[in-house]
Amino acid sequence: MADESQKWVLMVTAQTPTNIAVIKYWGKRDENLILAINDSISVTLDPAHLCTTTTVAVSPAFNQDRMWLNGKEISLSGGRYQNCLREIRARANDVEDKKKGVKIAKKDWENLHVHVASYNNFPTAAGLASSAAGFACLVYSLAKLMNVQEDNGRLSAIARQGSGSACRSLYGGFVKWVMGKEENGSDSIAVPLVDEKHWDELVIIIAVVCSRQKETSSTSGMRETVETSALIEHRAKEVVPKRIIQMEEAIQKRDFATFTHLTCADSNQFHAVCLDTSPPIFYMNDTSHRIISCVEKWNRSEGTPQVAYTFDAGPNAVLIARNRTYAALLLQRLLFHFPPNSETDLNSYVIGDKSLMEDIGIQDIKDIEALPPPPEIKDKVPAQKYKGEISYFICTRPGRGPVLISDDSQALLHPNTGLPK
Amino acid sequence: MADESQKWVLMVTAQTPTNIAVIKYWGKRDENLILAINDSISVTLDPAHLCTTTTVAVSPAFNQDRMWLNGKEISLSGGRYQNCLREIRARANDVEDKKKGVKIAKKDWENLHVHVASYNNFPTAAGLASSAAGFACLVYSLAKLMNVQEDNGRLSAIARQGSGSACRSLYGGFVKWVMGKEENGSDSIAVPLVDEKHWDELVIIIAVVCSRQKETSSTSGMRETVETSALIEHRAKEVVPKRIIQMEEAIQKRDFATFTHLTCADSNQFHAVCLDTSPPIFYMNDTSHRIISCVEKWNRSEGTPQVAYTFDAGPNAVLIARNRTYAALLLQRLLFHFPPNSETDLNSYVIGDKSLMEDIGIQDIKDIEALPPPPEIKDKVPAQKYKGEISYFICTRPGRGPVLISDDSQALLHPNTGLPK
Repeated sequence: MADESQKWVLMVTAQTPTNIAVIKYWGKRDENLILAINDSISVTLDPAHLCTTTTVAVSPAFNQDRMWLNGKEISLSGGRYQNCLREIRARANDVEDKKKGVKIAKKDWENLHVHVASYNNFPTAAGLASSAAGFACLVYSLAKLMNVQEDNGRLSAIARQGSGSACRSLYGGFVKWVMGKEENGSDSIAVPLVDEKHWDELVIIIAVVCSRQKETSSTSGMRETVETSALIEHRAKEVVPKRIIQMEEAIQKRDFATFTHLTCADSNQFHAVCLDTSPPIFYMNDTSHRIISCVEKWNRSEGTPQVAYTFDAGPNAVLIARNRTYAALLLQRLLFHFPPNSETDLNSYVIGDKSLMEDIGIQDIKDIEALPPPPEIKDKVPAQKYKGEISYFICTRPGRGPVLISDDSQALLHPNTGLPK
Repeated sequence: MADESQKWVLMVTAQTPTNIAVIKYWGKRDENLILAINDSISVTLDPAHLCTTTTVAVSPAFNQDRMWLNGKEISLSGGRYQNCLREIRARANDVEDKKKGVKIAKKDWENLHVHVASYNNFPTAAGLASSAAGFACLVYSLAKLMNVQEDNGRLSAIARQGSGSACRSLYGGFVKWVMGKEENGSDSIAVPLVDEKHWDELVIIIAVVCSRQKETSSTSGMRETVETSALIEHRAKEVVPKRIIQMEEAIQKRDFATFTHLTCADSNQFHAVCLDTSPPIFYMNDTSHRIISCVEKWNRSEGTPQVAYTFDAGPNAVLIARNRTYAALLLQRLLFHFPPNSETDLNSYVIGDKSLMEDIGIQDIKDIEALPPPPEIKDKVPAQKYKGEISYFICTRPGRGPVLISDDSQALLHPNTGLPK
């Protein structure tokens, strides 16, 4: 150990994407290890629009493990953080930084404390799986700092112990979380199916829905479903295994019709088992239902599906368009039905990849007001508008897995003090 | 046949209740005969507040079968009406009315036409199973007119061919519709479990929810569920049979806790399989969810359940309170959360058995505004109010089965012309 100086700080900064499941994870067979009752498949979202950046630092000057999330210190005493820290420390190796003249021997790690600073480039409260990106980034960056040699698959099994869906954020593109069979969870890991270039036509629009409702946390929600739903076991054992096989094939073949059918059906079935829980859990609200109706009606009128929808444990819609052309048509529909409140700045109403707005020629709120109703609306009643029901839209696409950030200026901790900048 | 005079009209008037399922019917194994994929159990609602009155008439002067619903002539050409008329005619017997000097021989019925006038004492569009009471009343009154000897069980198998749930309206109290095994549906009949006096403490409040949503008809909805849901078969074959046994026992024992658990769980599961349908079917809306949350929270705070909820193919809540005391407390909660719009007349906002309003001392809208929040609401956020989300409440109770109305002044057809009064 570098006894000669207490002043050095070693740091690593990494960026990890979030992901959205297209075959859902809902229900654990082991609460502590976080082992799922079925496989799941997700698409990783472009970290340019949704990601966590984490800096981890080690220094002999630190006297305890500490963490800051979005600038605010949070407790690391929770079992999930402790599990991740313990598992990574157990795999730490010798580290040498010649420039700083620092050597850390494998055995020293258990006596060294770390500082962690984490930042999401999207609102934590928006219900966009920030814990997935967060735990993946924590584990990935700690592993790099401690020279852990395990590949991302093995790291995914550690991130899984922080948050189940976090394991799928260790890879880009489409990712399968294999539930595994072992009691210790060693085979419950993420497996990359195809990278983000395989199906790069897809465009994703997230509708962040305004909601006053206090939502059931997914941890307690899935526990209650497993304990009380009369349908969850049938879903996990009979329905999902077939869908996993079909979904893998659809992704390999870029078969958008099958992909859409499975994605929508599985999202709906996940919400169905939530409703079958006692007391029932409602994550979708009337706005979510309206988005589904809009997409279903449009897909039907097109003859072949152009947009898939999926909803996690909240009312927000994640909409996956076949390609950029249909994404533009989708955004037109969404803006027609869900115009912003008049006081909303358009620049903060559609965020992420704003180039789609150029494609549809929308520059200000008046352009939204001038949008014609979608042609598939043939009801006698005029097309409905629901002003103010959406907080904002995020335009994005499938993206890459975790990366190291070598540019020290992007680190979230101060290189000398190891405290937040 | 009474050839000597073409002027006579023979009439029968009957009144039939509606019913609400506590173990749901959803899905047919035969679309034409209307045979269900599982047994169901319902409670018959007091006809004083929700019923259909039907007058049927026969006369040699009628040259076709005709029907008027709520004063408006409707077509009888649909298969469902034709099935009921054919089955009843096939069972007609000799009829003699000595006072009028009329004799109709069994064989004459196939050459005689009928007039039918039907009236619901509640809004048809409110989604309150008006077709159940309607077809039950049609079959029951025709059977009396034509001197059909079959008991109500056999008549229920005919009413079933008009509307599945109609078979359960042939009895009062709690009723089971046995799905049966025969291909011709002869054993798919209603069976009375207990009459309305068995559990006469129960009080029922129906919240008719405002909704602009166009709803999927239950006929097409259940067809789509059977065709596309991956969960419906498991529900019908594995879940419901056990619940039927438990529910019968709970009703026999007046075990309100078990009754509530089963009623709520089965309503939620019915809506879960609707959501698992492709495209998904949403019958409940945010208002329905709010009512459920209110009841669940209250039941939890009471330790033992005091109110059960169930929702049919629409957003309206049917709330079953353990007794009058809890019904009054329930109505207070409902009025607190869902006050009427200021222009609403209180007299039309709470209808049916208005005595509950006296119990809680509410005489005008100001009394509603003065209601304190329910004590179980301990959130830091103030208790939410949703003015105008409910159209009106109906206070009622379990009720009796069909009855004949001997008072001619209540007939809906003119005794001389056989046309609507």
